[in-house]
Amino acid sequence: MAENGAKRIRLGMVGGGTGAFIGYVHRVASRLDGDYELVAGALSSRPEVARESGRNLGLADDRIYTSYEEMARAEAARPDGIQAVSIVTPNHMHFGPAKAFLEAGIHVICDKPITSTIEDARKLAEIKSKNGARFLLTHNYTGYPLIRQARELVESGALGNIRVIQAEYPQDWLTEAVEQSGNAPGAEWRTDPARSGAGGAIGDIGTHAYNLLRFVTGLKTEAVSADLTSFVPGRKLDDNVHIMLRFEGGARGMLWASQVAVGNENGLQLRVYGDKGGIEWRQDNPNYMWFTEFGKPKQLLTRGGSITGAPASTMNVRIPSGHPEGYLEAFATLYTQFAAIIRGDGAAYEGLLPTLQDGVEGMEFINASVKSSQDDGKWTRLSDV
Amino acid sequence: MAENGAKRIRLGMVGGGTGAFIGYVHRVASRLDGDYELVAGALSSRPEVARESGRNLGLADDRIYTSYEEMARAEAARPDGIQAVSIVTPNHMHFGPAKAFLEAGIHVICDKPITSTIEDARKLAEIKSKNGARFLLTHNYTGYPLIRQARELVESGALGNIRVIQAEYPQDWLTEAVEQSGNAPGAEWRTDPARSGAGGAIGDIGTHAYNLLRFVTGLKTEAVSADLTSFVPGRKLDDNVHIMLRFEGGARGMLWASQVAVGNENGLQLRVYGDKGGIEWRQDNPNYMWFTEFGKPKQLLTRGGSITGAPASTMNVRIPSGHPEGYLEAFATLYTQFAAIIRGDGAAYEGLLPTLQDGVEGMEFINASVKSSQDDGKWTRLSDV
Amino acid sequence: MAENGAKRIRLGMVGGGTGAFIGYVHRVASRLDGDYELVAGALSSRPEVARESGRNLGLADDRIYTSYEEMARAEAARPDGIQAVSIVTPNHMHFGPAKAFLEAGIHVICDKPITSTIEDARKLAEIKSKNGARFLLTHNYTGYPLIRQARELVESGALGNIRVIQAEYPQDWLTEAVEQSGNAPGAEWRTDPARSGAGGAIGDIGTHAYNLLRFVTGLKTEAVSADLTSFVPGRKLDDNVHIMLRFEGGARGMLWASQVAVGNENGLQLRVYGDKGGIEWRQDNPNYMWFTEFGKPKQLLTRGGSITGAPASTMNVRIPSGHPEGYLEAFATLYTQFAAIIRGDGAAYEGLLPTLQDGVEGMEFINASVKSSQDDGKWTRLSDV
Amino acid sequence: MAENGAKRIRLGMVGGGTGAFIGYVHRVASRLDGDYELVAGALSSRPEVARESGRNLGLADDRIYTSYEEMARAEAARPDGIQAVSIVTPNHMHFGPAKAFLEAGIHVICDKPITSTIEDARKLAEIKSKNGARFLLTHNYTGYPLIRQARELVESGALGNIRVIQAEYPQDWLTEAVEQSGNAPGAEWRTDPARSGAGGAIGDIGTHAYNLLRFVTGLKTEAVSADLTSFVPGRKLDDNVHIMLRFEGGARGMLWASQVAVGNENGLQLRVYGDKGGIEWRQDNPNYMWFTEFGKPKQLLTRGGSITGAPASTMNVRIPSGHPEGYLEAFATLYTQFAAIIRGDGAAYEGLLPTLQDGVEGMEFINASVKSSQDDGKWTRLSDV
Repeated sequence: MAENGAKRIRLGMVGGGTGAFIGYVHRVASRLDGDYELVAGALSSRPEVARESGRNLGLADDRIYTSYEEMARAEAARPDGIQAVSIVTPNHMHFGPAKAFLEAGIHVICDKPITSTIEDARKLAEIKSKNGARFLLTHNYTGYPLIRQARELVESGALGNIRVIQAEYPQDWLTEAVEQSGNAPGAEWRTDPARSGAGGAIGDIGTHAYNLLRFVTGLKTEAVSADLTSFVPGRKLDDNVHIMLRFEGGARGMLWASQVAVGNENGLQLRVYGDKGGIEWRQDNPNYMWFTEFGKPKQLLTRGGSITGAPASTMNVRIPSGHPEGYLEAFATLYTQFAAIIRGDGAAYEGLLPTLQDGVEGMEFINASVKSSQDDGKWTRLSDV
Repeated sequence: MAENGAKRIRLGMVGGGTGAFIGYVHRVASRLDGDYELVAGALSSRPEVARESGRNLGLADDRIYTSYEEMARAEAARPDGIQAVSIVTPNHMHFGPAKAFLEAGIHVICDKPITSTIEDARKLAEIKSKNGARFLLTHNYTGYPLIRQARELVESGALGNIRVIQAEYPQDWLTEAVEQSGNAPGAEWRTDPARSGAGGAIGDIGTHAYNLLRFVTGLKTEAVSADLTSFVPGRKLDDNVHIMLRFEGGARGMLWASQVAVGNENGLQLRVYGDKGGIEWRQDNPNYMWFTEFGKPKQLLTRGGSITGAPASTMNVRIPSGHPEGYLEAFATLYTQFAAIIRGDGAAYEGLLPTLQDGVEGMEFINASVKSSQDDGKWTRLSDV
Repeated sequence: MAENGAKRIRLGMVGGGTGAFIGYVHRVASRLDGDYELVAGALSSRPEVARESGRNLGLADDRIYTSYEEMARAEAARPDGIQAVSIVTPNHMHFGPAKAFLEAGIHVICDKPITSTIEDARKLAEIKSKNGARFLLTHNYTGYPLIRQARELVESGALGNIRVIQAEYPQDWLTEAVEQSGNAPGAEWRTDPARSGAGGAIGDIGTHAYNLLRFVTGLKTEAVSADLTSFVPGRKLDDNVHIMLRFEGGARGMLWASQVAVGNENGLQLRVYGDKGGIEWRQDNPNYMWFTEFGKPKQLLTRGGSITGAPASTMNVRIPSGHPEGYLEAFATLYTQFAAIIRGDGAAYEGLLPTLQDGVEGMEFINASVKSSQDDGKWTRLSDV
Repeated sequence: MAENGAKRIRLGMVGGGTGAFIGYVHRVASRLDGDYELVAGALSSRPEVARESGRNLGLADDRIYTSYEEMARAEAARPDGIQAVSIVTPNHMHFGPAKAFLEAGIHVICDKPITSTIEDARKLAEIKSKNGARFLLTHNYTGYPLIRQARELVESGALGNIRVIQAEYPQDWLTEAVEQSGNAPGAEWRTDPARSGAGGAIGDIGTHAYNLLRFVTGLKTEAVSADLTSFVPGRKLDDNVHIMLRFEGGARGMLWASQVAVGNENGLQLRVYGDKGGIEWRQDNPNYMWFTEFGKPKQLLTRGGSITGAPASTMNVRIPSGHPEGYLEAFATLYTQFAAIIRGDGAAYEGLLPTLQDGVEGMEFINASVKSSQDDGKWTRLSDV
């Protein structure tokens, strides 16, 4: 991959103070390819945490903020102000900063799901950003090289007409009521409707699986029939998600997401079958993907390995096949390709990076599923929520 | 495993003439452990085929029949007549012979699904067999040692309360319209409602997956919500099956069966998760099973390998772990343990072998799923069909 | 596979009384395809064991022998005498019966290694059998369909010139000194030089790995450099085997066999690399084989699956790919194809079944390796022992 | 992992101009955790390449050098001079810069193998560095969390006394004579004795496998018996390496490294067996490791997953188990922990990072193996070269 140390983008961050997992991930992703330099942050609303976190990260004192509004204003005014900002707060705190920075003409990188309500998502999508500020939603799994290759295989017709899509994302970390212990802050807000929104597992991981199948197949979803369950006593949001899907053109799908599937760490898996071929990919060993042409032996494609004609899949490969890349590299790819778009040399990545529109679709998926489940599994159109 | 060459059971067969796959499988299963000797057959309704097939198999000419009625009558009358019969005809031809032999006091081994209609299944279940003749339904996957062990793990409480069950059985052999070529007799009747019954993939392989999850978990199904599709133009029955399930006690499940999932040969898979542990098993590598106790590393159990207290799982292991057993061995286990029951020394196997009642349940599952799919996925109780 | 119930071959057995593992395996192998009927046996030298074992297996009392000499004489004289005999005694007891039956004109099926000394092996190879009696050495792993396919791929040139061969057979059942407990009869004789011969692990499993690489590649071995170790205190024979090999034409190899590799049940593995392609196969999941053409993605071949032009690999497939076959099926294939040769319709199998000559080569391999190890790893030619 | 943005170490680089693979990897490794800032470089001896590469990376013009001697002198003299330097030139160009920077009091991070000759390695080890400058040899595979855990398992006695070690590193990228095309600069110098040293595959990848087994087991090697081969016509150095090893205390091992094993990308694998347990790990799926206690089921350990008491294995885990980390993360761990040592807060990492002494041992391994192979496999002591 190209290195652009000479043209680093000045980055800020909202949320992500010491101890916050996803903020840390965003910072690593911004550093890995050397395209960003973190120079400002509203890392916490608690002043001491904000200050200490900022200093640890090497921020200058005058660029450590405790409010995103102040940060947006101040940075927009500086000649050396940030060019982009990463928003890594809990879901219900995405909308405010995203709006503020877009309106200030600062590019926004936002964790998923885009907001905690569909109304916020739609409002956000209508904001007129200043100076062409762009928006990146970090559906990070789309950054895996073989997921890019999967998309290209579908587009190229190698799978024929898509018939069946099986997506799943089982975990087991919420098998017990850890959110009620008070010791698991990540678990706490993720199971709290006020901060997470209407969906639990479906918002946290179901949207990832859904976004992934949309990214790879390009198929529009017509309707869903869902059965959402909360197995752990006292849990307010779903921790297991069963959904059947119908796509435009007739394809059918299933999506399973679970936080109580004992023995699964992050078992995101996508399988797509057409009338000519099939692909199968798992996130826990992401450098390999099965590709079968009907009537021929299964082929094990490797990241950056031997298959022709897949430019988008190789343009984010850093090291030779056989040397594994992982979650952070895929995350970094979104950052790096967004940097290219910001710099104006990222035409090749247009259309590949998740946008506001993907965010709205993700919320429609969550809301339609929740509604279907409340209606005893009634097939529910995504356009009806 | 014990060998009982001295007490071989005299076996007959209905269907299974030269070229028939499942008849061949039943014969191998009957031979493998040496508990049966094939001595009579109505292998085909076409006299020449019946005769040639019978002679190839070493049957005496006077025990080669062309009608099962005649065979039941004649064999019941002989002092050396058959003690058991295998029925390996297409689904719609199970009921007649099963009734005839049970009423003649001859034990019946019958391929699945039990019949082509639920009415037939229920009638069969009510037949008073003569002389205590028994019935074995060959849901052969229940014969795998690790499936027996899975059942024991659930029964022992090692998984805690079951929450989530994911069953699937993808194949790809009907990706194209082979049944319309006239060259694929197995494909032809399996896609013909007159011979198969109301279900295609759901009857052929969906019932296997369903029977397996019932066998392992013991949970009663409350209701299903189904979406059955026929993807191949001109195909009269479903070739892809998506089902959500609700079980008594609150567990939820998904079942996927497909004959158009390119790259899958016989990908039967069962995953069961409780509040204490989880298990995962695949038929295409059946000598291994994952078992995870929550909070501990995954363990790879092996057929006959190192784990304590699982008698039923080891009583059908033939060779040391690390030397793979497969489909034929699991099938043979049903035959062999049924032979023990026939001989009167099979008390240990009572309750383990699939019965008429399992056959009826399988038909209820098929019919409820077909009905739910016709009703746009409405949750349908198995007791309502 | 064809069934030949009408032309069953009358079989006898030497060794294999109740409780003997390998005798049981040979009997299952003889039954599975229905080509043999066991009618006589010298199952034990202890009269009561011989009698009880024979009766359990359904042998007539007058065909239960306590000496193989007597059995050879009596059976050769009967009009309905055995046509073939299986020899399943410990290694040092192979030579006597093999000689007796060959000279009596009875076909011999003999477990490996062929004898306990190379002198015996060579003497056996020189015996003039009566009436064209044939000899089968049960190197059973050569019966796996994908091993046949591997051999065909090599022969066809798909791998190009072979360069590197990596064979291994790790187990862990002798990690502790079970043979000294008196409770493990199989372990006892296998670690006793008087009954096993000069090699421990090398004779028990090393020869299997060696035979397999010879079968697949056809390459003659020039010389070996070996390091044999006995790790368990008090053990008289090697339990870990490290060997480097040089083949005619310049290929190089490594062979590792171990009975103390904790975590391995029967991890027989073969990997062969040429200048055009490579193959990789493991016995513990034998229905799959990797095949890579240089510069292309790895392909996962399946038993009986989608690849063209491999007749020998499909002629021993019983059930569709995706339904696993295992150890017993591969073993049965040797029996069944040997039956075809006996019946005179087995021309297709000539050259595929392990012979006396393979037995001699196996002993040369054992002896050369033991000698090399005693000479501190000196490269030792197989022709020099 | 901690982030230390506030205390970044000023880094220089020798070698690694545009297009050089390993230089790129070192830069990513230095950036990933945010502990270094690249500020100077002698990236190429060709002035234009040096300048353009430096500018691309954002170096100031006055810190772009074309000679490492000049760079060492100039940087040592600057108040803001580099604190550490990465040496990423071909092997024969390691010694000069390493010596120069150590003597200038600048910490050295050097790619492996340490030098191209053992004499240079030993001379380097005797250099008195100024101001306590430290040396890191980037045997990057030791940075994988599960390799750290493997080492701890061995140290803790969980495997008991080590008996057998199987290490391998197969690749296939040199299956054909790419180095003779002039288009593959990486292949070119790696197959040239003048630049690589006496070993080909053994120096490039064999040393990695060797270092890994030494790191994990801690066992000293007594002697090796080697068979090195060059299969590709015209190739000057070995492309396939077969070695048997004897360790102090009686353990035995095998090491296979190959650049012509078709179908292998970077198949580094380590298996270690003791009298109580065994471990098995592969680099191409590095987030998993098998651990078996004798007589119990195999356990699949995961990076950062559920097993107690393994501090060193978790102190370099960045993200939750189930989210894969890879090659770059493992490489970065060496950089990051070396940074901690430089800063003075890295006591926990002392003894874990590869040193000059490991470099000397690696050269002894190469030289003893080459010598043994020239002496027809004679067991050769590492202390004798």
